[in-house]
Amino acid sequence: MIEKIGDWERSHYSKQLNAEMDSQQAIVMGWVRELRDLGKVKFIKLADREGFVQIIVKKDMDEEILKKFKELGREDVIAVKGTVKASKMAPNGVEILPSEIRILNVSERPLPLELETRKTPAELVTRLNSRFLDLRKHEVAAIFCISDSLKRSFFDYFKTQGFIDLNTPIIVEAAAEGGATLFALDYFGKEAYLNQSPQLYKQMVLASGFDKVNIISRVFRAEPHDTPRHLNELVQMDAEQAFIRSEEDVLKHFDGYLQYAIENLNKNCAEQLKLIDFKIEGLTFPIKRLPYDEALDELKKVGIELKWGEDLTPEAEKKLCELYNPVLITKWPSSVKPFYCMKEDDPKYSKGFDLLLNGTEISSGAQREHRYEELVKNLKEKGLDPVDFEFYLNAFKFGMPPHGGWSIGLERLTMTLLKLANIKEASLFPRTKERLIP
Amino acid sequence: MIEKIGDWERSHYSKQLNAEMDSQQAIVMGWVRELRDLGKVKFIKLADREGFVQIIVKKDMDEEILKKFKELGREDVIAVKGTVKASKMAPNGVEILPSEIRILNVSERPLPLELETRKTPAELVTRLNSRFLDLRKHEVAAIFCISDSLKRSFFDYFKTQGFIDLNTPIIVEAAAEGGATLFALDYFGKEAYLNQSPQLYKQMVLASGFDKVNIISRVFRAEPHDTPRHLNELVQMDAEQAFIRSEEDVLKHFDGYLQYAIENLNKNCAEQLKLIDFKIEGLTFPIKRLPYDEALDELKKVGIELKWGEDLTPEAEKKLCELYNPVLITKWPSSVKPFYCMKEDDPKYSKGFDLLLNGTEISSGAQREHRYEELVKNLKEKGLDPVDFEFYLNAFKFGMPPHGGWSIGLERLTMTLLKLANIKEASLFPRTKERLIP
Repeated sequence: MIEKIGDWERSHYSKQLNAEMDSQQAIVMGWVRELRDLGKVKFIKLADREGFVQIIVKKDMDEEILKKFKELGREDVIAVKGTVKASKMAPNGVEILPSEIRILNVSERPLPLELETRKTPAELVTRLNSRFLDLRKHEVAAIFCISDSLKRSFFDYFKTQGFIDLNTPIIVEAAAEGGATLFALDYFGKEAYLNQSPQLYKQMVLASGFDKVNIISRVFRAEPHDTPRHLNELVQMDAEQAFIRSEEDVLKHFDGYLQYAIENLNKNCAEQLKLIDFKIEGLTFPIKRLPYDEALDELKKVGIELKWGEDLTPEAEKKLCELYNPVLITKWPSSVKPFYCMKEDDPKYSKGFDLLLNGTEISSGAQREHRYEELVKNLKEKGLDPVDFEFYLNAFKFGMPPHGGWSIGLERLTMTLLKLANIKEASLFPRTKERLIP
Repeated sequence: MIEKIGDWERSHYSKQLNAEMDSQQAIVMGWVRELRDLGKVKFIKLADREGFVQIIVKKDMDEEILKKFKELGREDVIAVKGTVKASKMAPNGVEILPSEIRILNVSERPLPLELETRKTPAELVTRLNSRFLDLRKHEVAAIFCISDSLKRSFFDYFKTQGFIDLNTPIIVEAAAEGGATLFALDYFGKEAYLNQSPQLYKQMVLASGFDKVNIISRVFRAEPHDTPRHLNELVQMDAEQAFIRSEEDVLKHFDGYLQYAIENLNKNCAEQLKLIDFKIEGLTFPIKRLPYDEALDELKKVGIELKWGEDLTPEAEKKLCELYNPVLITKWPSSVKPFYCMKEDDPKYSKGFDLLLNGTEISSGAQREHRYEELVKNLKEKGLDPVDFEFYLNAFKFGMPPHGGWSIGLERLTMTLLKLANIKEASLFPRTKERLIP
């Protein structure tokens, strides 16, 4: 029943067909999304990754074709050789009159997930359980085309800025920042952890002569909460730069990267943005820098009172983005920033910053402390033992230049930029407390 | 003693300076690699990521500069503002006469690792223990510039071929292929593993409509051996493609990718190749396809007898590359290929292949079995329980197209292409049984 593809090669994706190709031969391949039999004329709605094309089977066609049509079921995989016919009635302005149909694979029925989205949309959990089917919906696939573009833009932007892409380890001996929850594993008899950030490693690399580095890696957080904006495994994009004058030298790359990424989305993912009915708009560049103290003042004016030294609440983040979007909150209290963050001359304040976009924090960074003695002092102040960080501190003893950088989570950037309701929408196979499969 | 960088911004890397800039002002930054004091004239050999530049301090210069020179030690981080002077005596044809020197950080002495490579080279283990110092040697950094280029070429090549880059999970419930040694971890009370390959996930994605995908991920192998060609954590680059006619449709991308990657290396990494005194030569394209049976015949002729059904020994791999380089060994016995590998019409043989380059296997792939019933049969034949693979098998029930692909390890590709003696040379912070730190 399942046939071989033989020497057939797809000649066109559905979207590549147009009325000017009338009478040409074509081979299309994909999934049988819908079947309609009106007696004299029968329709196959064929889906491929780019869209749909209509195949017309007529009563007077070859017996073999009519027989094949009867065998077909929804989501079977087929290849169709035929003649392109311009048609004002067809969805794309073209349809295909088949000369041969090959059934490459068959599908069980019923489907665990309905693919025709005019019907009631499935629950997210049902969709994620059958992600391979969920992705056949073009509006779901669109999110991952957009995510691919955001990641590629990061990779390409930092290359144009003279950065080198490097790979740092996932399995590490020490917690990057202490305190946070980590996944532990047995590493040939030693206890090891999955890295929660390449932070310490990317800083160590800056003692190496490589003075501009970017790292796209996987990071892991073992927090047991299951919220709409947290994942336990995520794609993190990091940049770090040496010989900086101040944090402004790394902050400027937010303007550079985000503008470049959005430009690429509008240029290369216009179809996908249309599919999810979304326009990226209302964002202001260059990004407003708002010192923490001023942010607190602004919030007070709109009735949100935060104690100095507290982190911003999700409500506060939302409010600030109503005023400025995106916005960089700078000059944070040292007490809420990690030990590797450099302090201002007034040590109550740090050179750390957060980026808020569409109401959510999507990135953190800082100018880092590059002076060995200060760093040891900072560690102790945070209640951490310098002995646990020896492998890292060593890199500060033999000539560490001033430096800083930031990281941004790909899934959270995708979710926030597209205003998705749940970060799991932006992860192909999300990992949360409840989800280890598929 | 440590000074601030102030508003200084590097104007040039050392390599950007040339004799035509005579009399211009410049700011350079980097590490004090060497100091020489000849009395009337003193030299600083300043290293940055691109190379070296000579700073000349003369007896009649400002007191402040002479004082700074005395303070300086090897590997201190400095910034130098001064005048470029053309000089036929200087290594690059230029030197810098400083008007001001700022000491941005200092280095402890002695160094744990000697950086002047004309002396006896350090043992690899010493180098890896102080990797941040080791990387200051330009010939070590060069390997990672080349590795970055090989990875970027993969990312870019597959984009031009219409592939989408996706991210699949690292933490998984099931072993990808059974049998192999895995790192286990506790995932919120459930036993989970670090993925040894995105294989099963990238195949599942091909049931989704995305018919050409590439994945650059981290993979983990818990084998306890410590050999010159194995790592326990590595960067794997995967490609997978649906609607193929045969494995030749994916094999052709070896020709495409490798030629593109080498072209980019020769174009963009010419300096780095010169630094490690290496030319990529003697490779023949399109890559010779050599069926397994013929490979055995060729080996027999040169005195290496392998039993049919055995994997190739390292010695055999070396021999075959003396005949053809690179070479694709195709039509392997099914018995040595994994369960997801499609069989030939004669089921003794499979549609699996290996790529050998410079004497070492660097990649494996296959046309995959896309028919549910056959796949279940294959699993059982290999002694695996289909129940353990349910999350994966599900994707084959609802319309899986014919497909195939391959993966290539970045570190092994780098090592093999550059003929490095040890794969650890190609990993920034290698992970082996003995190495969890740094």
